[in-house]
Amino acid sequence: MEENSRKEDCKVNTSKSILDYETVALDEEENALVIIDQTLLPNKTELIRLKTAQEIWDAIYLLKVRGAPAIGVAAAFGIYVLANQVDTEDYGLFYQEFVKQKEYLDSARPTAVNLSWALNRMDEVCRKNSHLPVAQLKHRLKEEAAAIKEEDIQVCRKIGEYGLELVKPGDGILTHCNAGQLAACRYGTATAPVYLGQEKGYQFRVFADETRPLLQGARLTAYELFSSGVDVTLICDNMSAAVMKNGWINAVFVGCDRVAANGDTANKIGTSVVAAVAKQYHVPFYVCAPTSTIDLATPTGEEIRIEQRPADEVTQMWYKERMAPEGIKVYNPAFDVTDHELITAIVTEYGVARAPFTESLRELFERKQNIKQ
Amino acid sequence: MEENSRKEDCKVNTSKSILDYETVALDEEENALVIIDQTLLPNKTELIRLKTAQEIWDAIYLLKVRGAPAIGVAAAFGIYVLANQVDTEDYGLFYQEFVKQKEYLDSARPTAVNLSWALNRMDEVCRKNSHLPVAQLKHRLKEEAAAIKEEDIQVCRKIGEYGLELVKPGDGILTHCNAGQLAACRYGTATAPVYLGQEKGYQFRVFADETRPLLQGARLTAYELFSSGVDVTLICDNMSAAVMKNGWINAVFVGCDRVAANGDTANKIGTSVVAAVAKQYHVPFYVCAPTSTIDLATPTGEEIRIEQRPADEVTQMWYKERMAPEGIKVYNPAFDVTDHELITAIVTEYGVARAPFTESLRELFERKQNIKQ
Repeated sequence: MEENSRKEDCKVNTSKSILDYETVALDEEENALVIIDQTLLPNKTELIRLKTAQEIWDAIYLLKVRGAPAIGVAAAFGIYVLANQVDTEDYGLFYQEFVKQKEYLDSARPTAVNLSWALNRMDEVCRKNSHLPVAQLKHRLKEEAAAIKEEDIQVCRKIGEYGLELVKPGDGILTHCNAGQLAACRYGTATAPVYLGQEKGYQFRVFADETRPLLQGARLTAYELFSSGVDVTLICDNMSAAVMKNGWINAVFVGCDRVAANGDTANKIGTSVVAAVAKQYHVPFYVCAPTSTIDLATPTGEEIRIEQRPADEVTQMWYKERMAPEGIKVYNPAFDVTDHELITAIVTEYGVARAPFTESLRELFERKQNIKQ
Repeated sequence: MEENSRKEDCKVNTSKSILDYETVALDEEENALVIIDQTLLPNKTELIRLKTAQEIWDAIYLLKVRGAPAIGVAAAFGIYVLANQVDTEDYGLFYQEFVKQKEYLDSARPTAVNLSWALNRMDEVCRKNSHLPVAQLKHRLKEEAAAIKEEDIQVCRKIGEYGLELVKPGDGILTHCNAGQLAACRYGTATAPVYLGQEKGYQFRVFADETRPLLQGARLTAYELFSSGVDVTLICDNMSAAVMKNGWINAVFVGCDRVAANGDTANKIGTSVVAAVAKQYHVPFYVCAPTSTIDLATPTGEEIRIEQRPADEVTQMWYKERMAPEGIKVYNPAFDVTDHELITAIVTEYGVARAPFTESLRELFERKQNIKQ
């Protein structure tokens, strides 16, 4: 009976906009991580409550929650939920269990930077507060997770403000994959200039690449922008040249998973295709990157490891019907690396970096250090 | 009972290769146009027999038969099948009915060059042979349709021979959409060098773009090459930069729907994306074009009209499940125009044309005229 009523609660009123829901949240009363199950979008908006390590791991692995910033926040709330279940007053026993759960969650998507970054931040809270009673430590963990989420919102807003300076009202903007609110907690990264522009009445015309194989552009970006009243047009990934040749695009904004010290950028597969096409048609190409995704320890894109995903993402649309012959060989990299020479500028929460990136990114980190001090 | 046994006949023995079937054929006994229903590939190989004008029109409109050369051959056999049903000895009455059916078939896909080209060739046979008894005229029509098919095979073979000179054994070849045997009668255009190379043991490694929205690359190209034992790897359209950056591609071969006098080429949407990426990674980009698709009367790509297709091709995969929000705006051009400056060479049955195309294409037509005389 209770299970049934819970299921009813989880069905969301479809008359609400997708933007009325939080991508990642904590249900304190139930001690649960609450996310929108993004694999069901856009056909069904369903909030799911995750309480066990297995449920949280699966949600990340199966892309129910995805997008580097959102994964970070989900991992932070997730590890808090699990830590909160540890029934002991002994720090040693508590921390032993914490580390076990942390390592398990961290294995869900090994190459997602923000996953381990957020888990390590939570770990640091434990280690720095080992003197506190476990109950108080749990409280600190909850505060840290909430801080990670709040910081994400502020970072995205700043990226939006800097990005907005690069475009003008009425501009045509192309984006790839989903670096939107559904990939973060509000504003998104690549979509932040669009949402802030929307608040100011900029009337952008946005073109969203559907982004094969998992269609995050069609299912998520087109959906969230459409819900927010933005003028958005869905295109297939192979139509970017057509819309640029038509003169419809004034700027490309994309997110990123990792930026190397020389500006080479790993992002969703297809990003470097858009970049090459943008160069051909003289359209500026902007990468929106929280400084947490800029990795000065990685010299160039050559050193970025690219995650390979299963063939059936390509051959069986949502695992229902085969769209290619049985047994066909498939190459399915989740990301590609865009050469820094194709990138007009990298937009961060501390400002806009331009070529030569090796210098401008280093300067940007110095500015960040100065502001923090 | 007879209907049932006919249905049984149409189910094809799946242990045979797709290449064992003719893309387009005539069943003289039944007076029917016989095609592989390409919308069912790769999950089901089914030959369908078309006898009425409505059936033939639908097959072309719904892409059961597609690819410029194959459409031309299907239209030629189709109009013969319909003409053969006209029960009169009076040429005037016969021709009146012929023109009516011809105009109807021609409306199925107004922008497909080979459709009207083949129908006009059949029309010319009528007009030149108005003095013959109708029964003999019907025989001439059948011969003309068979000639169109046979010429297509020879043209593709010549394109394959010229194309093969541009690559070497072991090369990686990328192709977009399906300009293969399923788009023609044998060899295809873009795939002709691959099939001829296969005969010579060239061991190419082919990468097939899946080609959204209708996945002709995944469903047809990957399928027919795989069936023929070619080493083929399926990729999404947005992975072309990744495979080129990996150094896996030595040449791109694509087909075309129309080539303008300056070399600008209309082909399946996404072709110009591949061309821009190939330029970025210094990979030669070859267009395989029967001279029937080269239109010297069209000065540049600007004058080529681009067919727009319905939104639901993009938003509803095979009309079963929505992959994008209800009501979303979609831009779905069937073709794009590749700037001639992105094209390394145009491979025809009369040789290989290189820049400046305005001169080389004209010279090629002069050669064609001289050979024909």
